[in-house]
Amino acid sequence: MTDAVERLIRPRSIAIVGASPDTGKLTGRPFAYLKKHGYQGPIYPVNPRYKTIGDDACYPDVASLPTPPDVGLVLLGSERVTEAVSELSKRGARAAIVLASGFGESGPEGRARQAKLKEAAGPMRLLGPNTIGLVNVTDRIMLSASAALELEGISAGKIGLVSQSGGILGSVLSRAVGRGIGFSRLIATGNESDLGVSEFIDFLVDDPATDVIALYLEGVRKPEAFREAAIRAARAGKPIVAFKVGRSESGIRSAVSHTGALAGSDKAYDALFKQLGIIRAQSFAELLDLPLALSAGYRLRGRNLAIVTSTGGAASLVADAAGVAGFNTPAPDQATASKLKNLDIKDAVLDGNPIDVTLAGVKSALMQSVIDTVLESEMFDAVTVVVGSSSLHEPDVITGPLMRAAEKSDKPILVYVSPDAPQIVQHLNRSGIPAYSTPESCATALTELLRTTDRTIGSASSAIKAPTIGVELRTGPLNESESKTLFAEFGIRATDEIVASTPAEAQAAARKLGGPLVVKVLSRDVLHKTEIGGVAVNIPAEHVARACEDMAKRFQAAGKGKLEGFLVQEMVSGGLEFLLGYSRDEQLGAAVLIGLGGVMTEVFKDTAMRLVPVSEQDARDMIAELKSAILLQGFRGRPKADVEALVGAIMSFSNMIEQLGEQLSEAEINPLFVLPEGSGVRAADGVVVLRDKAS
Amino acid sequence: MTDAVERLIRPRSIAIVGASPDTGKLTGRPFAYLKKHGYQGPIYPVNPRYKTIGDDACYPDVASLPTPPDVGLVLLGSERVTEAVSELSKRGARAAIVLASGFGESGPEGRARQAKLKEAAGPMRLLGPNTIGLVNVTDRIMLSASAALELEGISAGKIGLVSQSGGILGSVLSRAVGRGIGFSRLIATGNESDLGVSEFIDFLVDDPATDVIALYLEGVRKPEAFREAAIRAARAGKPIVAFKVGRSESGIRSAVSHTGALAGSDKAYDALFKQLGIIRAQSFAELLDLPLALSAGYRLRGRNLAIVTSTGGAASLVADAAGVAGFNTPAPDQATASKLKNLDIKDAVLDGNPIDVTLAGVKSALMQSVIDTVLESEMFDAVTVVVGSSSLHEPDVITGPLMRAAEKSDKPILVYVSPDAPQIVQHLNRSGIPAYSTPESCATALTELLRTTDRTIGSASSAIKAPTIGVELRTGPLNESESKTLFAEFGIRATDEIVASTPAEAQAAARKLGGPLVVKVLSRDVLHKTEIGGVAVNIPAEHVARACEDMAKRFQAAGKGKLEGFLVQEMVSGGLEFLLGYSRDEQLGAAVLIGLGGVMTEVFKDTAMRLVPVSEQDARDMIAELKSAILLQGFRGRPKADVEALVGAIMSFSNMIEQLGEQLSEAEINPLFVLPEGSGVRAADGVVVLRDKAS
Repeated sequence: MTDAVERLIRPRSIAIVGASPDTGKLTGRPFAYLKKHGYQGPIYPVNPRYKTIGDDACYPDVASLPTPPDVGLVLLGSERVTEAVSELSKRGARAAIVLASGFGESGPEGRARQAKLKEAAGPMRLLGPNTIGLVNVTDRIMLSASAALELEGISAGKIGLVSQSGGILGSVLSRAVGRGIGFSRLIATGNESDLGVSEFIDFLVDDPATDVIALYLEGVRKPEAFREAAIRAARAGKPIVAFKVGRSESGIRSAVSHTGALAGSDKAYDALFKQLGIIRAQSFAELLDLPLALSAGYRLRGRNLAIVTSTGGAASLVADAAGVAGFNTPAPDQATASKLKNLDIKDAVLDGNPIDVTLAGVKSALMQSVIDTVLESEMFDAVTVVVGSSSLHEPDVITGPLMRAAEKSDKPILVYVSPDAPQIVQHLNRSGIPAYSTPESCATALTELLRTTDRTIGSASSAIKAPTIGVELRTGPLNESESKTLFAEFGIRATDEIVASTPAEAQAAARKLGGPLVVKVLSRDVLHKTEIGGVAVNIPAEHVARACEDMAKRFQAAGKGKLEGFLVQEMVSGGLEFLLGYSRDEQLGAAVLIGLGGVMTEVFKDTAMRLVPVSEQDARDMIAELKSAILLQGFRGRPKADVEALVGAIMSFSNMIEQLGEQLSEAEINPLFVLPEGSGVRAADGVVVLRDKAS
Repeated sequence: MTDAVERLIRPRSIAIVGASPDTGKLTGRPFAYLKKHGYQGPIYPVNPRYKTIGDDACYPDVASLPTPPDVGLVLLGSERVTEAVSELSKRGARAAIVLASGFGESGPEGRARQAKLKEAAGPMRLLGPNTIGLVNVTDRIMLSASAALELEGISAGKIGLVSQSGGILGSVLSRAVGRGIGFSRLIATGNESDLGVSEFIDFLVDDPATDVIALYLEGVRKPEAFREAAIRAARAGKPIVAFKVGRSESGIRSAVSHTGALAGSDKAYDALFKQLGIIRAQSFAELLDLPLALSAGYRLRGRNLAIVTSTGGAASLVADAAGVAGFNTPAPDQATASKLKNLDIKDAVLDGNPIDVTLAGVKSALMQSVIDTVLESEMFDAVTVVVGSSSLHEPDVITGPLMRAAEKSDKPILVYVSPDAPQIVQHLNRSGIPAYSTPESCATALTELLRTTDRTIGSASSAIKAPTIGVELRTGPLNESESKTLFAEFGIRATDEIVASTPAEAQAAARKLGGPLVVKVLSRDVLHKTEIGGVAVNIPAEHVARACEDMAKRFQAAGKGKLEGFLVQEMVSGGLEFLLGYSRDEQLGAAVLIGLGGVMTEVFKDTAMRLVPVSEQDARDMIAELKSAILLQGFRGRPKADVEALVGAIMSFSNMIEQLGEQLSEAEINPLFVLPEGSGVRAADGVVVLRDKAS
């Protein structure tokens, strides 16, 4: 039996419950749109007030439908939806689409109504409520009330969109039509009472009509399913581009009240996207700009860009934006330059880059030769062609050569259209040549093409086998020694140290370790030892007993809890101080945070976060993301640091978080000394707080 | 006698040298465009090959013109231009516009040609060469060959554009027409052999038709004139928005080959713009987006934004982008919320923000009430109205209320148009309501409106009176003591210190100063004293002689030059280490650089630069621009630093650079200790290298 989602996207019959013959009303639109865009199967309007709608019979209720519809599209208000859904389920519909709002997004009562709606659906799948429906462009099945379906010229393409907002679906579709960009399917998921983003990503991964997946997200309700679907997409070689709101307090509040999505911190989402190889659109426009380039089937192998133009200023815009994005625009080598010069174009600049053919070069045969020559040259990895106002009246002079060139080469060919010329943009995009109207979008598209060509997808599970935890774990805060023993169980080496019950024992320990040493009070009751004078550094071995006695006095004076003893510890030098931290996002789960230790990390907010489990690739990406990573490479004469050991420590820390699960309330290693290459890392201090397992 | 620039913009008669009757050719366009757009004065085409062009007589040469034209537009190729310019000058034309390329932008020969061209013009002013001309929209005088003049619907507005590229002029004009944005004048300056950006800024400052000035720059040829013109604009309350290419190597090369502009570092341009209160467009689109909002006559007084919408998703985009830009979207207070609720709009969310009127609220009277209520509320400083697809067929339902609201309030009203709807964008912009098609551009426009309302313009000259330099300056590198004496002359206090010739003298100095101390070798031959073991810190007073002896041995062993003696210096503690540096941009002149001392400033590239002279406001802006500035404010329990003294030191350093002029080859203070509030700063080390005055 065919999957219900498959049937929802490609129904053989459709019931429209609450349909109206008035196309001026929202309830009149879906019937009209289905017909207008060419749906061939039977449509059953359901409304007791009409006998017919158009030429079709209208049914008084769901029960009287001649056959069970594959999909029931429910246009009724929130108070009557649940009954209709129940009836559709009884009648044997495979899926229902519910447009009404006033459910989960509108507070506790709405959430209760939504639970009842889900219950009423029984085994039938639900899209919505609070959705505008879905648009299957490939098969021209428009199951939606979106006013964007009034438009002519909706063309099929390789991009599939899943949007948590119906309005955004309409906006994206309308903008795509304006630019001649085609889609395969557009699905608005709304409140996701049943089917959500993950299920439709799954569908699009298997959908031969779709090459690139675009997501508009307000929040991810089922992170695990989302993760699995995204990994399937990566394995299938289908890039995902996501635009997510909620980067600011205002945005989060707006999104939550809009479709009732759960928030989660934006930093955690950023980590999720990075770990899954999802490209994050940085602006709303990029949600179209990036899939456009990614769906063209290009391979970008390097950073050398040729710019072909007939107008100097616009080419400078592209050169500058590409340069800022890290691309080079080298002058053609001698072989290429002499081929170009042989074309003998008057006043043209053919040995520079931009290659300026001037107005004299805007002729079909010349453009063809220039573009072919540039693409054939091994030195160039991509070409951006600038369309100036001279091409406005004869777009084929440009588009013809570009289309022929694209057939012969898989190098990216992008177009920047300098004047306001929507018709040229449309024509190019429909011809399969990505065309942009801002120089910055060309540069961003190139950046993402390069990343997609290069990319390696982190594995979902960490590579390290979980150790059996060999120490018995007590509940509540561990003291420093216990915390470090736990870290060591997971493979993170601590400083050499000895626990002493008395100053005399500490003195004996000091003799064993050799000085100079670090001496600390040991107490699970004190989080910030320095604040009560509980840490002394650079203590000669012979002074350790006295240091302990002084500390004990200060500890008693502070009156903060029970002194359990002293920690006598080797002094580490010559390393870089890092911190490893742990946080838990209420929506996306546990995460590891790293940063350089000390005040500068706070000042420059130079930290990196990834969700648990952190793979080896993730750990390397985290380190590379830090601006201060440059210090690990032997900056200004310092020795190179043991990056491999830091990678291992991050993975071990992640592994520990995973194993302890909900039991882990707090965990931090600070500082973690990263020693010179080959010497490993040392956890010099740390905190762990555990919850009762039962709780 | 009227200014020649004024005549150039508003000529009473025009000669077109090299005119052609073929409107398909570039040489046929200007005549046709002048006629088409309604130029009323006499036009004299000059071309020996034709008797008439259109209904007008065509003259065989410039000499035979019936009267001297105000402007001669020269369409000839580069080889014949100079003669024509000479003839126009002789005939008494006030200004000539030269379109031909192949001059300064094309290498040494072209530069020589350009010098001859300038000479041939004599007292007549020149626009170009390598320009597309100018477009005076206000008076409908289109002195240009830009194909953008084919367009219908070029509307007048309050924005004046000066572009160094003719192609960009066409692109901006075409995009403006597409969006319904009006301009007063658009002038392409090309190679600027005579008239350049500064002269036209000057014109626009005095031009009653212009409220906002937009600049497209590849490089500023005359920084002093540019500075003066920009300050005049600021004083006249006319904001300048500049987009400048050359942010990357690729962009710089492209711009130089395009109009032969001189490069200059982008960082220096950034400083120039900041000091002159020029708003830098960060993308090409912002060159239109920002002037659009700034020309609407709004005043934005705070950061509280109301979003009025009928569609939830698009409103979330605006809320999120505005939030990222630092705006708040608070829910309406009780008084405002109850006024809104009284409107009784079904399903509407009127006590939140976005204020979602839903489809039921998209009615003219309701929209009017909602918008008026929000604008009347004291809690909101601005409103963004979202236009959804529901308004596509009845734009007046939205535009009517917006226009009436704009008449009553000077609070910013911006519109975000969610679907692809160029006709609505046009309609709104033509009605004086700035309309945007990306949520990010709304947010950026609000940011710049706030900045423009707030702004204070730095004075062009520093406030400090120049001291007479009391020390005799020698040429070449100064030693540390001489350098610090020079800094002190300009008011930057150095550490307490004594120069000693021998270890014994040093010992005596140490007793005088009291320990612990810093001891250094003194030698103008050694720039990096630490590298040869020439610095010792934390030396007890009684060990200074020995420290000097050891140092002297190391100095001799290094064999780097002449040892002049020793510097015995107080040890400064409890301050923040800054550095003050000096650089000279080949195009824009001397600059001051500041940053926190130490390796982290390099790692995080956290420096700020301003051109000399640095005003007090500039110095404060520089400090505020540093991420590490937070450390000056008493970060994490540290004492607040003496920011006033740092401001003074920056201005003093700038003053020193200004006074020494070309004589100053190198100068740096590193570290400059910034002590706790009230304790001032101390220059602890520094370098100065002077050139021979004669050189």
